[in-house]
Amino acid sequence: MRSYKDIQNILLERIKGGDWPPGTLLPAEADLAHEFGCTRVTVNRAMRALAESGLVERKRKAGTRVVQRQSRNAMFEIPLVRDEIEQRGGTYKYLLVSRTLEKPPQKVRAEMGLTGKHRVLHVVSLHFADGAPHQIEDRWIDLNVVPQARNETFESVSPNEWLLRQVPYTSAEHVFRAALPSKGEGDLLNLTEGKPVFVIERTTWLAGEAVTHVRLVHPADSFRLVTRDRFGDGV
Amino acid sequence: MRSYKDIQNILLERIKGGDWPPGTLLPAEADLAHEFGCTRVTVNRAMRALAESGLVERKRKAGTRVVQRQSRNAMFEIPLVRDEIEQRGGTYKYLLVSRTLEKPPQKVRAEMGLTGKHRVLHVVSLHFADGAPHQIEDRWIDLNVVPQARNETFESVSPNEWLLRQVPYTSAEHVFRAALPSKGEGDLLNLTEGKPVFVIERTTWLAGEAVTHVRLVHPADSFRLVTRDRFGDGV
Repeated sequence: MRSYKDIQNILLERIKGGDWPPGTLLPAEADLAHEFGCTRVTVNRAMRALAESGLVERKRKAGTRVVQRQSRNAMFEIPLVRDEIEQRGGTYKYLLVSRTLEKPPQKVRAEMGLTGKHRVLHVVSLHFADGAPHQIEDRWIDLNVVPQARNETFESVSPNEWLLRQVPYTSAEHVFRAALPSKGEGDLLNLTEGKPVFVIERTTWLAGEAVTHVRLVHPADSFRLVTRDRFGDGV
Repeated sequence: MRSYKDIQNILLERIKGGDWPPGTLLPAEADLAHEFGCTRVTVNRAMRALAESGLVERKRKAGTRVVQRQSRNAMFEIPLVRDEIEQRGGTYKYLLVSRTLEKPPQKVRAEMGLTGKHRVLHVVSLHFADGAPHQIEDRWIDLNVVPQARNETFESVSPNEWLLRQVPYTSAEHVFRAALPSKGEGDLLNLTEGKPVFVIERTTWLAGEAVTHVRLVHPADSFRLVTRDRFGDGV
């Protein structure tokens, strides 16, 4: 007598082997029970196991289908740079490079949707891992939206950590790119000429107003984003 | 008499201004109604509007708190390269470069968790946007897991599209990096020396077995990943 595990493996082989490609409607449980000479309960349990592993989708009335994903989704969690470094046992250090009130360049104004000509707080800082520069945080903060930033020196806390503590946000946009650093960025990161960087640009909004825009620049040799996605129970 | 919009704006200013930083428990509705000289119904409606915009979280009994995000999450949807190009009005072209059965290098074997010394299908192809190389797809497919790939030439359909149609997957790992291309990659992409690339490496599993590992290489000048995340209704 075949166990539900046996049935599960047979069905799995058909899915893997392309007999039942993504989107295929599987035969009715009664038909499979007849084919395999087992009970419907056994087939049902095998189907449930496949559904739990994220391989088939069961819908009442519509039956069971092999899952079909139209695109590859990936969920990123971008940790605070301090946490990222400390969690892998590294020593973190923060250094404020400059803090000025400036008219932002056109690109930043466009990203933040700034229409007025008011000055914006510009804070440039460096995050080190084990003594080596790991990230430039080049950030603009709109004091019209976050007035209390006016009183913060950012000498001992990074704008990133301070903002997470001080201001919630309701939407964010990220752009991820590979690039060559500007001369100033290459110098700050202590990079040999010609070495590329991984750039994350992020704009964050609170109730329709841009709070902040940041350009995070990392040496390509020491930075990568990793994401693991599991569907079903991920076996 | 103050409207719920007035109350909402007062609460919003307190959140933005740092009086109520992330994690703060808001005063009880009755207390706010007393402070603002309005009804509890009005306060309740203002709170609901803030909750809908993703700014506060309301929990039965525990009360209402300003949301606190520990890290920045970003959800990516990585479209098929054909869709990505065609959706922005570009002309897509696919070209098979090579299709061989090979022993994979140690790095690929480690990514796929291959223990045996069997040969693996290695398919290298190019995706063009408006006549210019846009992506190298350098892919390994385990024929022990996907035997039907043995009969596919990949001359008219890319491995990426073919796999999405043929085989579901239950987990995936992505690595995103900036790098300089290898000599061969630079030649395939027609890149001037010294130009960086954006690399996506992806391993895909089906029920515990690695189906495929791919290295996608893009000219940094023409590739970026963009993601927009909205919490609540995202205003």
